[in-house]
Amino acid sequence: MPAAEDDPFQDLLGARTLGQCGTEGVALHAALRHAVVGGKRFRPWLVGLTHDSCAGTRPEAVAAVGAGVELLHTAFVVHDDVIDGDRTRRGRPSVPEGFRVAALGRDVPDERAELYGLAGAVLTGDLALAAAVRAVATAPVPPAVTHRLLDLVDQALAVTAAGELADVRLATHPGHPTLADVLSMEERKTAVYSFALPMQLGAVLADAPDEVVHALGEVGRHLGLAFQLQDDLLGVFGDSASTGKSTVNDLREGKCTALITHARSTAGWLEIEPHWGAVDLDDARAALVRDALERCGSRGFVEDLVTDYVATATDAGAAVGLPAALLSDLAGLCTVPVRGAA
Amino acid sequence: MPAAEDDPFQDLLGARTLGQCGTEGVALHAALRHAVVGGKRFRPWLVGLTHDSCAGTRPEAVAAVGAGVELLHTAFVVHDDVIDGDRTRRGRPSVPEGFRVAALGRDVPDERAELYGLAGAVLTGDLALAAAVRAVATAPVPPAVTHRLLDLVDQALAVTAAGELADVRLATHPGHPTLADVLSMEERKTAVYSFALPMQLGAVLADAPDEVVHALGEVGRHLGLAFQLQDDLLGVFGDSASTGKSTVNDLREGKCTALITHARSTAGWLEIEPHWGAVDLDDARAALVRDALERCGSRGFVEDLVTDYVATATDAGAAVGLPAALLSDLAGLCTVPVRGAA
Repeated sequence: MPAAEDDPFQDLLGARTLGQCGTEGVALHAALRHAVVGGKRFRPWLVGLTHDSCAGTRPEAVAAVGAGVELLHTAFVVHDDVIDGDRTRRGRPSVPEGFRVAALGRDVPDERAELYGLAGAVLTGDLALAAAVRAVATAPVPPAVTHRLLDLVDQALAVTAAGELADVRLATHPGHPTLADVLSMEERKTAVYSFALPMQLGAVLADAPDEVVHALGEVGRHLGLAFQLQDDLLGVFGDSASTGKSTVNDLREGKCTALITHARSTAGWLEIEPHWGAVDLDDARAALVRDALERCGSRGFVEDLVTDYVATATDAGAAVGLPAALLSDLAGLCTVPVRGAA
Repeated sequence: MPAAEDDPFQDLLGARTLGQCGTEGVALHAALRHAVVGGKRFRPWLVGLTHDSCAGTRPEAVAAVGAGVELLHTAFVVHDDVIDGDRTRRGRPSVPEGFRVAALGRDVPDERAELYGLAGAVLTGDLALAAAVRAVATAPVPPAVTHRLLDLVDQALAVTAAGELADVRLATHPGHPTLADVLSMEERKTAVYSFALPMQLGAVLADAPDEVVHALGEVGRHLGLAFQLQDDLLGVFGDSASTGKSTVNDLREGKCTALITHARSTAGWLEIEPHWGAVDLDDARAALVRDALERCGSRGFVEDLVTDYVATATDAGAAVGLPAALLSDLAGLCTVPVRGAA
C-alpha cells in the first residue's frame, strides 16, 4: 500500500471556496482535512490493484475514483461518529469532538457545544460525500463507463446506509441480536463499500465484463466479512504492540461482535457476562474473558468463519478467471496472525 | 409553478436497491419519498425559468438538473431538522421524528429512539445528497457544461454548509448577533442554494456567458435575502388564511430574525422582550408585539430592506441584459402582500 498522502485530495476539499466562507468555512475545511489525513488509503489501493490485475489502462481515472472512494469512506466515518457519539477516531479527536471542543473554547455552554459539534460534523460529512460522488462522476472515462461506476456507488451507498441503520437498531433494540443479524449488518455496513465497491470500480475502469464485476462483488463481500471478523479477533486476542489496537477496549465497551454473539449462545457466557461491558474491566479480568472465549469454542468458531469466508471469496474469484496473484494478495489481507495458539 | 409531483424523482430515490436492503432499506426509501413529496418544486422551476429566458434548448437537462437541486434542498432540509431537532416540517412529522416514532412503536426506550431518529435522518439526507450530485453530474450535456454545473454546485454546497454552521453558532453563542451577522448568515444558508444556484444552473444549461452567470449569482443572493426577509415579515404580519403560516409561532419560538435583531437595537425592545420567546404567548400578546414592532420602526425598516434588495437584484440583472420579463417574474416572488398597512 502507498504511504498516506493527502495532496491528491487538495483540489477535492473545496479549499478555495470554503476559505472564502468566513470562520465556519475555514473550520469546515480544516475538519475535512483532519478527517481525510491519516487514513491508510486502503480503498484507493484496492481500486488500483483490481484495475491493474484486470489489465486496465486508465491510471488517471484510477486516481480520481480512488480519491472518490476514500472521500466516501471519510463521509461514512464522520457521520458514523455523529451517530455513535464517538469522541475519538484513529487515536485523535473525532470530527464532532473537534467542533465541540472549539465551541467550549469560546465559552459556549456544554449542551450547546455538543450541538455545534453535531452540526459541524454532519456538514463536514456532507461536503466529503458530495466531493466523493463528484470525483467518481468526473473521472476521465467514456459516459457509459461513468454510468457503470455511478450505479455501483449508488448501490453501495444504499446498502451501507441500510447497514449503518441496522447497526443502530441492533444496538438500541431490546433483546440480543442473532449471529445472522450481526453478520448481515457487518456485510452491509462495511464489507460492501470497503471491499466490494473499490474492487468493482477498479474492474469497471478496466472495462471488465459484467460477470467479472458481479463476481468481484461476491469476492469483496466475503473478504470484507473475513476482514471484519479478523478485526474483531484482533480486538480481543491481537498483539497490541504490532496492531496498535487495545485488546481490552472492545470488551470494556461491550462491543457486540460475532465473537460475543456466538459466546452468548454457549454455556461459557455465564463466565463472560459479568465482565463484558464492565467499565472497570482491567487486564486481569480481560485475560479471564479471553480464556473463557477460547474454552467455549467462540474463538475457534470465528477463526473458522474467517477461513471459510476467505475460501469462498477465492473460489468466487477463481471461477471467473481472476488472476491467482490478485486473489492471493486479497486473501493475505485477512490473515493477520493473532496472539497465541487457538 | 407546476403542481408538485414526485414521479420524476422515482428513479433517483434508489427504490430498487433500497428495497433489497431489508427493513432499514425500505424505511430509508419511505423517508426519502416522504421528504421529497410535498415540496413546492420552486427551485426546479427557477432552473427552467432562467434556462428558457436565456433561450436555452436543453429541456431534458433542465429536468435532470431541476431534480438535482430539489434533492439538494431535501438533503439540507433533512439534515437541518437533525441539527435543529425539529419534530415537524411542512405540517408533517420531520424525517428524524418519523424514525423516532417508528422506534418507539417497537418499544425502544426514549433516548434510544431519539438516536435511531438521528441516524435515520442523517442517512436519508446522505442518500438525497448523493442522488442530487449524481443527477447534476449525469445531465445530458457536453463535459465542459457538466464541469460548469458541478463547480456551481460545489460552491453552493460550501457556502450553504458554512451558513448553516454560522446559524448554529449564532444560536448557541453567548450574546446577541448583529443585524450584519443575521443577514450574512441568511444569505449563505438559504439565498445561495435556493435562488442563486438554480438560476445560475439554468443559465449554464443555456450556454450563457460567464458574466451573465456571475450576475445571476448577484441577482439570486439579493432576491433570496429579500424573499427570506419577506418570509420573516409574513411570519409575524402575514395573513395566515392565505399563507397557511402562523403569525404567532416565530414570536413564541423566539426566532432570531432580522426583524427582531433590528428591534433589539431600539427603545421599543423593552416592550417586546417580555413576550418574545414566551412559550405561553397568545394572540393578544402577539398583537402587542406586532404593534410595538411597527412603532419602533422595525417593520418599516425590514420592508425597506426587501424593496432595496429587490431593486439591487433587478439592476444587477438588467446590467447584463437579462430579459425584463424574467426580472419582473423574479421580483414578484418577493412582493407577497402582508396584512394591514405599514
